[in-house]
Amino acid sequence: MMESVERFLSESGKSMKRSAIREILKVLEKPGMISFAGGLPAPETFPVGDLREIVLDVLENEGAEALQYSTTEGDTLLRRMLVERHNSQGLNIGIENLIITTGSQQALDLVTKIFIDPGDYVLCGLPSYLGGLNTFTSYGANLKGIILDKSGMKTDVLEETIIELKESGQTIKFIYVIPDFQNPAGITTSENRRLGILEIAAKYDLLVVEDSPYREISFSGRTQRLMYDLDTSGRVITLSTFSKIFAPGFRVGWIIGDPAILERIVMAKQTADLCTSAFVQKILARYLQKGLLEKNLEKTINLYSQRCSYMIECLGKYMPENVTWTEPEGGLFLFVTLPENLDTEEILKKAVEKNVAFVAGSPFFCNEVRGRNTMRINFSFSDNSEIEEGVRRLSQVINEEITGK
Amino acid sequence: MMESVERFLSESGKSMKRSAIREILKVLEKPGMISFAGGLPAPETFPVGDLREIVLDVLENEGAEALQYSTTEGDTLLRRMLVERHNSQGLNIGIENLIITTGSQQALDLVTKIFIDPGDYVLCGLPSYLGGLNTFTSYGANLKGIILDKSGMKTDVLEETIIELKESGQTIKFIYVIPDFQNPAGITTSENRRLGILEIAAKYDLLVVEDSPYREISFSGRTQRLMYDLDTSGRVITLSTFSKIFAPGFRVGWIIGDPAILERIVMAKQTADLCTSAFVQKILARYLQKGLLEKNLEKTINLYSQRCSYMIECLGKYMPENVTWTEPEGGLFLFVTLPENLDTEEILKKAVEKNVAFVAGSPFFCNEVRGRNTMRINFSFSDNSEIEEGVRRLSQVINEEITGK
Repeated sequence: MMESVERFLSESGKSMKRSAIREILKVLEKPGMISFAGGLPAPETFPVGDLREIVLDVLENEGAEALQYSTTEGDTLLRRMLVERHNSQGLNIGIENLIITTGSQQALDLVTKIFIDPGDYVLCGLPSYLGGLNTFTSYGANLKGIILDKSGMKTDVLEETIIELKESGQTIKFIYVIPDFQNPAGITTSENRRLGILEIAAKYDLLVVEDSPYREISFSGRTQRLMYDLDTSGRVITLSTFSKIFAPGFRVGWIIGDPAILERIVMAKQTADLCTSAFVQKILARYLQKGLLEKNLEKTINLYSQRCSYMIECLGKYMPENVTWTEPEGGLFLFVTLPENLDTEEILKKAVEKNVAFVAGSPFFCNEVRGRNTMRINFSFSDNSEIEEGVRRLSQVINEEITGK
Repeated sequence: MMESVERFLSESGKSMKRSAIREILKVLEKPGMISFAGGLPAPETFPVGDLREIVLDVLENEGAEALQYSTTEGDTLLRRMLVERHNSQGLNIGIENLIITTGSQQALDLVTKIFIDPGDYVLCGLPSYLGGLNTFTSYGANLKGIILDKSGMKTDVLEETIIELKESGQTIKFIYVIPDFQNPAGITTSENRRLGILEIAAKYDLLVVEDSPYREISFSGRTQRLMYDLDTSGRVITLSTFSKIFAPGFRVGWIIGDPAILERIVMAKQTADLCTSAFVQKILARYLQKGLLEKNLEKTINLYSQRCSYMIECLGKYMPENVTWTEPEGGLFLFVTLPENLDTEEILKKAVEKNVAFVAGSPFFCNEVRGRNTMRINFSFSDNSEIEEGVRRLSQVINEEITGK
């Protein structure tokens, strides 16, 4: 038994902390808990029935390949199906522009590994996806936050920040953008703003990492053009995933990018996990081939749209005055802002006692003490009665905080 | 389109090369090719029939959980089944000593990430698994090779090397050992040698990474005790996998170790891929629970043992004099040594023209020009007629090189 492992750890090993979100998932197991904490898709949307037949088909007809190593780039049919689907939505890419990853979290990891040396800067939205921020810092990146308004990252602040960092001799590698129904703030970056970010990236020769897991969970059915689509210079790397549009349990994501960049990512993936499971890739390829994704996605969007509306209705009904929230047009999350003197990390402890959980906002804000009065609440996982009861409990805890009871 | 990405790359990104082995897998697709190159298990051993029923059962009864995110540590039932199985083989571990990884390649990646800063030393066998070496160097590790004899790593050389490195002010983090049916040399480390390595590790306060994917592919049925089992200090981290005893297509491995070390690995895994596929983990848990692994493993061992013997018989029949080979007691590979003046990288090009492939030995030897006249040949993937024809072709190419024709 080791008393301490500190003496063996790398700088990276020393710097790691357990993700606040992953840790909070553990309290979910408490009986009676209503959790708005995770980013869990609704199990009702998982296409279990459709999968039964496909899995049998894969085992029957492709068992030997499905249980063998895959190529590092990913299953060819799956890549082709994804390329076709993107092109039918307006892109113009080939199979050389798309590789498979073990979820889009791995894509974040590989992109960081090939680009970031300790001390290099990543520019992130304030707030941004915590799993991205933690990956960047695990490779020694310095993070610099850029304020978002309702149209996305503020480009004037972005450019000023770049100039300042460059003047002080810092190296900036990429801008991390979550353009669609942003996690955690629910903000969608406007096309103008996308173009503005791309222009700045080109001017200062930076890469853009476009992380877009929620893009297709659009309640109106409308989607913005991908930044990858708006760019012509090859500097945008787009990350996507089956986790929100299908199910997270397969751990399959993909990266769209310039072949010269993808080649390096493939090399990094060889040392990271050799390849993504051929078994789940072949199941997904057939699922796409049969056109089943679109049908299921429509069902998913309708459910989440309804749950989002219902949560907003309940917030209006139960929350005290001076509490505000976003009204997202898609995705899985609402972002709630409390009066400035309140601390959501403290409130979380009390909320968990009352059997309701959320994620406190401040960890999403890199390199600034900010957002201490904010919280992210998830609407995809709970049904209407849980949404109402959870919001009621949460409102009660917040009300007690405000009134000092 | 990017002309060059060099200016954006990290030191790690710049240092990466495509694995010689993964690259050679691509030539397999040439019609008529007989490949002894990969480390591919025989598809005949994949338990497709047994899986059919289990997958349906998982979808039917655990669909919601199987398609959702898993915990980062891994599926609890799967971890319990693995702990039970190890304990039935003589270990004495609890669930806190075992976590799931996305194949054992990910385990190598995570262990390296938490321990290695650029410039730190890893001590490796000469030769060692290339995928391990590439992972270590991708985090900036310096590698120092330790000669193997037929009992494993030479402990006198190991200790001398440690003393030399320490005297020159270097930091050594761990000894990388592949103790069972070593890849590529097929050598098994004796119990005495295991104890010797552990004693040295304790004396100089180093960790030991015990990578043992082939351990159960033992033709005699006998296995050595794990180094983890022989150690009492918590400094051994053992990596294992379903890839060789079940199938590689699920990408599931596991790590056994001290809880203080596993906790750090779990944090690293959170940023690497969040969790391993719940779907494949739940299938494997039930597969183990039904006792199906043992039955299938016996079949696998018999097949590989027979193929190994047959390959040795064919080598004796066709190879020119002055060519020698190991006679492994398990695993997937033979290691062949040609006369010293021959270069197997050159011979590989000619062999591929004649429709037979192998992996040249020298990339397995870190930090030394060595093994240029060696090759690794795999016997698990080809049937007897391919083995005979492949060895015949290969012998012909080598004979032409020797005789200068």
